[in-house]
Amino acid sequence: MNGNPDLYLETIGKNAKEASVILMKTQTSLKNRVLQDAADALISRSSEILEANALDRDAARKSGMAEGLYDRLALTEERIRGMAEGLREIALLEDPIGSVSEMKKRPNGLIIGKMTVPLGVIGVIYEARPNVTSDVFGLCFKTGNAAVLKGGSDALQSNIAVTNIIRSVLEANGLPMDSLQLIEDTRRETTRAFMHLDRYIDLLIPRGGAGLIRTVVKESTIPVIETGTGNCHIYVDESADIGMAVNIIFNAKTQRIGVCNAAESLVVHEKIREKLLPALEEKLKTKNVELRADEPAREYLQDAKCAVPEDWGTEYLDYILSIKTVADIGEAIRHINRYNTGHSECIVTSDYANAQRFLREIDAAAVYVNASTRFTDGNEFGFGAEIGISTQKMHARGPMGLPALTSYKYIIYGEGQIRE
Amino acid sequence: MNGNPDLYLETIGKNAKEASVILMKTQTSLKNRVLQDAADALISRSSEILEANALDRDAARKSGMAEGLYDRLALTEERIRGMAEGLREIALLEDPIGSVSEMKKRPNGLIIGKMTVPLGVIGVIYEARPNVTSDVFGLCFKTGNAAVLKGGSDALQSNIAVTNIIRSVLEANGLPMDSLQLIEDTRRETTRAFMHLDRYIDLLIPRGGAGLIRTVVKESTIPVIETGTGNCHIYVDESADIGMAVNIIFNAKTQRIGVCNAAESLVVHEKIREKLLPALEEKLKTKNVELRADEPAREYLQDAKCAVPEDWGTEYLDYILSIKTVADIGEAIRHINRYNTGHSECIVTSDYANAQRFLREIDAAAVYVNASTRFTDGNEFGFGAEIGISTQKMHARGPMGLPALTSYKYIIYGEGQIRE
Repeated sequence: MNGNPDLYLETIGKNAKEASVILMKTQTSLKNRVLQDAADALISRSSEILEANALDRDAARKSGMAEGLYDRLALTEERIRGMAEGLREIALLEDPIGSVSEMKKRPNGLIIGKMTVPLGVIGVIYEARPNVTSDVFGLCFKTGNAAVLKGGSDALQSNIAVTNIIRSVLEANGLPMDSLQLIEDTRRETTRAFMHLDRYIDLLIPRGGAGLIRTVVKESTIPVIETGTGNCHIYVDESADIGMAVNIIFNAKTQRIGVCNAAESLVVHEKIREKLLPALEEKLKTKNVELRADEPAREYLQDAKCAVPEDWGTEYLDYILSIKTVADIGEAIRHINRYNTGHSECIVTSDYANAQRFLREIDAAAVYVNASTRFTDGNEFGFGAEIGISTQKMHARGPMGLPALTSYKYIIYGEGQIRE
Repeated sequence: MNGNPDLYLETIGKNAKEASVILMKTQTSLKNRVLQDAADALISRSSEILEANALDRDAARKSGMAEGLYDRLALTEERIRGMAEGLREIALLEDPIGSVSEMKKRPNGLIIGKMTVPLGVIGVIYEARPNVTSDVFGLCFKTGNAAVLKGGSDALQSNIAVTNIIRSVLEANGLPMDSLQLIEDTRRETTRAFMHLDRYIDLLIPRGGAGLIRTVVKESTIPVIETGTGNCHIYVDESADIGMAVNIIFNAKTQRIGVCNAAESLVVHEKIREKLLPALEEKLKTKNVELRADEPAREYLQDAKCAVPEDWGTEYLDYILSIKTVADIGEAIRHINRYNTGHSECIVTSDYANAQRFLREIDAAAVYVNASTRFTDGNEFGFGAEIGISTQKMHARGPMGLPALTSYKYIIYGEGQIRE
């Protein structure tokens, strides 16, 4: 694609804004019908998606894409059914838009409440997973927001196919096709210009690796919700149950290594090293987890490398665990608050006061007592689908379900009141 | 002040972050005692404040400061009592920090809830009103946030005096003085560098005129909450009670002209022009309000200027009202959604369906039926003090009381749960 990216994006932005005005007032029943129809259409037109995906996969093979990335790019009938199922699940979720809360009567008789409203236009920049396209559409659409998507160039043909199918369903239901738009121009300068489209886009969400997220946070003039990076710790307190601690660490480290809520570091009370570390090492050996420990921990480990300071701040996303020894819970909290990325942190303890203190003082989106950090997830938290896991404090924190894509306005019922 | 602004701000940022770690866990009772002590100290040491303020006022006179600005700068014993009273009121407000809500049990036995937490460090950039200094401190401190303030250079001596008094109260109560810091370096490059201190400041709030706000929104790499500009409309529907409409417009336009929730524009249904406009003109004449109307409205006005397109987008903050005629409520809503600044909008009507439609479809922080827009205010809404009125949709919208200065984290109580 050629031409001036600003002109191209100007049209996309304007169309999105116009669509958002219609979506803002679209009834829940119609939104749900569109979601169900889109699910049906993804399945009935799956051959179009698979053909487009084959083009992307061929190109990926030729360019020598890494196996993990290739696997995420590849679609099958089953994955398309999963995408459709995702849309049906969103249709079943409660529509937050238009609900009114905190209604109260003021002394002067004014009745004031808060009404939930859409944000307007949501932009999402993501990498080579075409299923994100339908997911993000579903979440934005259900909350009355127009969506402008910039997927990875590796998945362009797949994303075009999915987007076209959903757009035709929108049109068939009398809604603006531009409720969902895909930026098909894959040039870097276009992505950069997209991040500056603040006159049309109300919120920008990057979904992908740490590099993508950093770039978007740094470059964007649109408000961004930072998602995803997780340098998560398990702190094993002096009073912990050893079996529980080993199970939780093993689960949080190895159940799935490439995800943001996987544990990257063990913080261990010096008085429990002797009981915990040998049992833990044996268990982790079954998955060949590499240990990088400080000296006090290495005393009780057979086969641990020496941790260097960089280890404390590293999200490995791999079969590697760093181990830091502390003298007490205060040191554990300071260490974790210094190195964590605001994602998920856990204490394993049987001490009531330490559990409460950890919950209170750790600065992260999700703070656990005696459970695996792997639960930080919209579905596990009972929100249904999620658009990402926010690691920032403004607007939304933690797994972001539908309410994270909304704002509110105050509505005021009067009888002619004026201010004295 | 000389030297490298970045080094100067680095120290301030670091100190604020350290203070915020203490404030995060400070008990409500201690916070309330500090607020009461600070109120006492402002009064007992008012002579220091007045002396400092005299220096600012002398300089302002010499530089030929405009009368309105000079009035805002000037402190008196009474105004200092008002500042103290403001702190006492904040002490009486409920502390939102640490409260837990939405606690629920998941099928796997995990108990998950949301705990309210401080944002961390809040920066505020404001103009020549020294009373803002104590207000902002009170609100940030009550919510467990450290505050870094950049006041107007015209009020520097007054702000230093107020800040020093509060800092000494903090110290006397065993809390970090750097819970409140004032940037005393008034150079432009320092203010600019402050807006880039995102590694230490979690939220930046500009308080002041439209120019200041625009600059901060554009320049800052810290998340900003946009406050204050208000191009507010009153739409008088066909079915409106004329007396009520005249009262509301008169109040919203003239009760105080220099504020963001004052009305700037009347949107009038063409079928009510004949009854409304002459009565309104007569009433507004008592305050010499200049009218700038479109042609259909001028037919029923004695002495209105011709409105030009720029009038629709102008926040006059003066005795001027623009008047736009519309054929129906749909046109009114489109006009208002095009030109409003997301602040406060009102319909005067006796029609049920139109009232509900206006509430639903107008995109603004506060939408009124049959009441003056002048009520958009933290006190009038029952929030107690406010730190500003947000005209954006992210994080907080409308009058921002204490909850707007907080975030939340998820807390999870487990019994050894791991993810399958």
